[in-house]
Amino acid sequence: MTEHIAAHPFDVATCVERVGRRCRGRTSDAYWAFIGPFGGVTAATLLRAVLEDEARAGDPLALTVNFCAAVSRGSFDLEVTRSRANRSTQHWSIVLSQAEGGIAATATAVMAVRREGFSHQPARRRRAAAFETLAPYPTLDTAAWIQQYEFRFAEGALNIGPQPRAVPDSSLSQFWIRDVPVRPLDFLSLASMGDAFFARIFHVRGTLVPFGTVSLTTYFHVDADELAQLGTGPILAVADASVFHKGFSDQKGELWSEAGQLLATCYQIGYFRDR
Amino acid sequence: MTEHIAAHPFDVATCVERVGRRCRGRTSDAYWAFIGPFGGVTAATLLRAVLEDEARAGDPLALTVNFCAAVSRGSFDLEVTRSRANRSTQHWSIVLSQAEGGIAATATAVMAVRREGFSHQPARRRRAAAFETLAPYPTLDTAAWIQQYEFRFAEGALNIGPQPRAVPDSSLSQFWIRDVPVRPLDFLSLASMGDAFFARIFHVRGTLVPFGTVSLTTYFHVDADELAQLGTGPILAVADASVFHKGFSDQKGELWSEAGQLLATCYQIGYFRDR
Repeated sequence: MTEHIAAHPFDVATCVERVGRRCRGRTSDAYWAFIGPFGGVTAATLLRAVLEDEARAGDPLALTVNFCAAVSRGSFDLEVTRSRANRSTQHWSIVLSQAEGGIAATATAVMAVRREGFSHQPARRRRAAAFETLAPYPTLDTAAWIQQYEFRFAEGALNIGPQPRAVPDSSLSQFWIRDVPVRPLDFLSLASMGDAFFARIFHVRGTLVPFGTVSLTTYFHVDADELAQLGTGPILAVADASVFHKGFSDQKGELWSEAGQLLATCYQIGYFRDR
Repeated sequence: MTEHIAAHPFDVATCVERVGRRCRGRTSDAYWAFIGPFGGVTAATLLRAVLEDEARAGDPLALTVNFCAAVSRGSFDLEVTRSRANRSTQHWSIVLSQAEGGIAATATAVMAVRREGFSHQPARRRRAAAFETLAPYPTLDTAAWIQQYEFRFAEGALNIGPQPRAVPDSSLSQFWIRDVPVRPLDFLSLASMGDAFFARIFHVRGTLVPFGTVSLTTYFHVDADELAQLGTGPILAVADASVFHKGFSDQKGELWSEAGQLLATCYQIGYFRDR
């Protein structure tokens, strides 16, 4: 008898099929957002196309994804190019396009071979109540992707109403996050979790407004071995914003291990509309 | 009699000549760093190639530059591609290559049309002594580019010796910066100043070690009109690091107006070697 182990929905969503020099992916309804796929899964899919390339060496160090247009339901093509490589780093470019609609995302990724040496972490994890002591955030039915994660807010839970607040609320939140069902952490899950913050504008205004990430950059601060030792997490995710101005706002995020190691920092800029 | 107004060295260094669909630039000895041009000037040159493209609309919103290899002294080619554009944003890709050596940098840039609306700045400028009250930092003769700026440290001035410190020093510094000679601020100067921090590893270890920026991302938070009102600055530049680990470290920077408006945030990851 053959035992069938069902693939994790995240692995289904980020699956990349190689057809010669090109790669092909397909959107996942499980990770659908408002008008397209959840950006974190798109970022992870682009990274996966590099990680599974036979010419890839080293672990992800930096990933920038530019969301040019909403990806439509269905399949998409990925053009993966290694621009330059030396002994310790590789530079890659990825373009996501669809037969109808053209280019929907562009990305660059840097792979690096890490070596032991000086180690020092000036950043400190904020104090947060332990994962076990917090209740899971009630599942929102606003977007499918949210149900693929468990969120346990330690600070700054999303609290929205029908109207914008008169006075802006805090832009900071921190929560524990892990996959549902649980899944061993890897660079793909970090790339995705780095975009799993609710838009800062929702927190500050206390209501939902049209919002979209325009550009997302993630820096990875650990290698594959360190990441594997963390098992299925959970991850403490912290996000804040610096400024909301003339239709655009930033977000600065950090992903931490329970033990207080900084795993990744993730930055983005996005547009928002007033209500 | 014709009056000749000499171009500012920064404008000479970032000059881009258009030859059909391609652009051509040339390295500047005035902004030379250790083994190649100062990365900030390279970033500004790539941005300039987009800004001067006749198809460009809107102001810079995001710029990511990946430094793949040292740029050699002399001329280089820029391939500038508009990947996607809609009413409010444009996505561009830029590749810098040299006849010998191949691709030395890749970049993506987002242009955006900003509109009035909700404005809120959760980030606050750190307290810093006023520009006028501080002495200019003594010019270092380690690299030419440093002499193209005036630095006035308010906190965390570079203090290096022959040997690494036994205990890591602070990774934070803040200083006032402006061009020498002064030059009206624009997106190009912000793009460059965002890389004008001395490597955090120099501060932390208290000595010079081999270091190079691998990837640099800048988010711009103002439009051209707001920037023009700031004249020639100065700019308060603040930088810190989160982590140094296994040969790579990050940097998170902010560029502020004297009045306390956040103009740009700039992030990077780079390699360092132990001594």
